[in-house]
Amino acid sequence: MHGVTPYHGGVPSRRNIPKPAVRRLSLYLRELASRQEAGEETVSSKALGRSLGLTDAQVRKDLALFGQFGHPGRGYAVAELVASLRRIMGRDRLWRACVVGAGNIGRALVSYDRFRREGFQIAAVFDADPALAGREVGSGLRVQRMSELASVVAAEGINLGIIAVPRETAQQVADALVAAGVQGILNFAPRRIEVREGIAIVSVDFTVSLELLAFQIAFGESGVLDPGNDGPEDADSPSDE
Amino acid sequence: MHGVTPYHGGVPSRRNIPKPAVRRLSLYLRELASRQEAGEETVSSKALGRSLGLTDAQVRKDLALFGQFGHPGRGYAVAELVASLRRIMGRDRLWRACVVGAGNIGRALVSYDRFRREGFQIAAVFDADPALAGREVGSGLRVQRMSELASVVAAEGINLGIIAVPRETAQQVADALVAAGVQGILNFAPRRIEVREGIAIVSVDFTVSLELLAFQIAFGESGVLDPGNDGPEDADSPSDE
Repeated sequence: MHGVTPYHGGVPSRRNIPKPAVRRLSLYLRELASRQEAGEETVSSKALGRSLGLTDAQVRKDLALFGQFGHPGRGYAVAELVASLRRIMGRDRLWRACVVGAGNIGRALVSYDRFRREGFQIAAVFDADPALAGREVGSGLRVQRMSELASVVAAEGINLGIIAVPRETAQQVADALVAAGVQGILNFAPRRIEVREGIAIVSVDFTVSLELLAFQIAFGESGVLDPGNDGPEDADSPSDE
Repeated sequence: MHGVTPYHGGVPSRRNIPKPAVRRLSLYLRELASRQEAGEETVSSKALGRSLGLTDAQVRKDLALFGQFGHPGRGYAVAELVASLRRIMGRDRLWRACVVGAGNIGRALVSYDRFRREGFQIAAVFDADPALAGREVGSGLRVQRMSELASVVAAEGINLGIIAVPRETAQQVADALVAAGVQGILNFAPRRIEVREGIAIVSVDFTVSLELLAFQIAFGESGVLDPGNDGPEDADSPSDE
C-alpha cells in the first residue's frame, strides 16, 4: 500500500523504521497541517526543516522511509503529504482505549487531557478490586469490574488496552485484553508482556528513564562526553537489526 | 577516563551512543553480577549473548562503545566488567531524587517500589498547593512546600529532580530544581523543558507512547510490515547524528 523503503538493505520490516523518525512524523504532521490551513500548496524539505529545527537532509530521509512523497524541483504537495502521514500514523481514525487498573497511574492516565486532543479517547476503566467498582475517576468515567471487560470492549469499540496494574497480574490482564479484541497494548507494568503475533505492544518503564538519566550524568562526568538536553524525543536512532 | 569508541566516525559525543545500547547495559550488568556471584571469572560474548537472547556480535558491539573490555581468546573478565559498567552507568552511587507535584503521577512515582531496588531513592516530595503540605504520600514521605525546595535538596543531598506538575508550571519547577543544585531532571510534564548545559534531562510523554502504538497498528495493517512485540526496550537504534 505504501512504498516502503527499508532503511538498510534487506527485507522490509517495521523493525527497520527508526523510532525517532516515527516520533518526528508527529512534528511533520503538525507543521504541515498548519501550512495547509494557511493555504500553502507545496513546501520544500528545506522550509520544513527550518520550521522544525532539522536539516533538509533529515527531512528527506525521514519521509523517504514511508513513501515517495517529494517531487524534485517542486517539493512536497502539502495536502497529499498530510493525508498520507495521517493514514500512515493511524491518525485518520479515532482510537478508543480502556485503562485496566484504577490506581495512581490509571487515574493519572484517565485525567491526562492531552490524549483526547491527540485523538485517543479513554472510554472505560476497569479494576479487579470490587470496592472500586462504580467509583468515578476523572471526566465522568466510572470504574467497572474485570468481569465486564470483554463485553464493554466489544460494545464500546475499544481497540487499545492500557495496563496500569502491578506486575503480578499484568500478563493475565494482557491476555484478557487480547481475548477481548484489542489491537494494541500500552503497558505500564514493570515486566515484559507476551502477546501473540499481530498484537502491537509498547511498554513504558519509569526505571529505564531514571537509568538513562543516571547514565547521562555519570557518563558526562567522565569528561569525554557532554551531557545536555537530550530527551528520548530528540536523539536520532535508526534501527540496525 | 573511559576509552570511548565513537559509533560512527567523527568526534566522540554522547549523542553517538545508541539509547538501546544504554538500556542493554542494564541487562549485561544484571547477568554479569549473577555470574560474578556464582564465581565465574571470565565470560565469552557468546555465552553472555546466549543468556540474554542477543547475538555475540551485538554484545561485542555494545560493549565496545564504552571501552576496551574484551581479551581476545579469553573473553571478558567478569569482575572488571561489572565494576566498569557500574561506574559508566552511574550505578556505583546512590541517587537521591525529589518529586515535584503530588498529584496522581507524583504519588504513583513515590510508591513505585522498583526505584529503590534499582538504587534510586525518593527522598522528598513537594507541591505548590499549601493544602497538601504535611500530607503523607506512600512510604512515610510527607508533602513539603515549594519554598522548602532549595534547603531540602541541599540538606538531603538530592541530585535528581522529577517533574510531575502540569505543563504550565513545569519550566518554572525545572528552573527551581536546577537552581537548587540537581544534576538531572526526569520530566513527566507534556512540554519541552529548557535547562542550561551540563544538566541532564529525560522526558516521558505518554502521548508519544500511544502514538507509537497507533503507528505500529496502522503501519502493520498496510500489509507490508509486521507489527509485533516491540517495546521501546527491544529495538536497536544507534544514533546516526
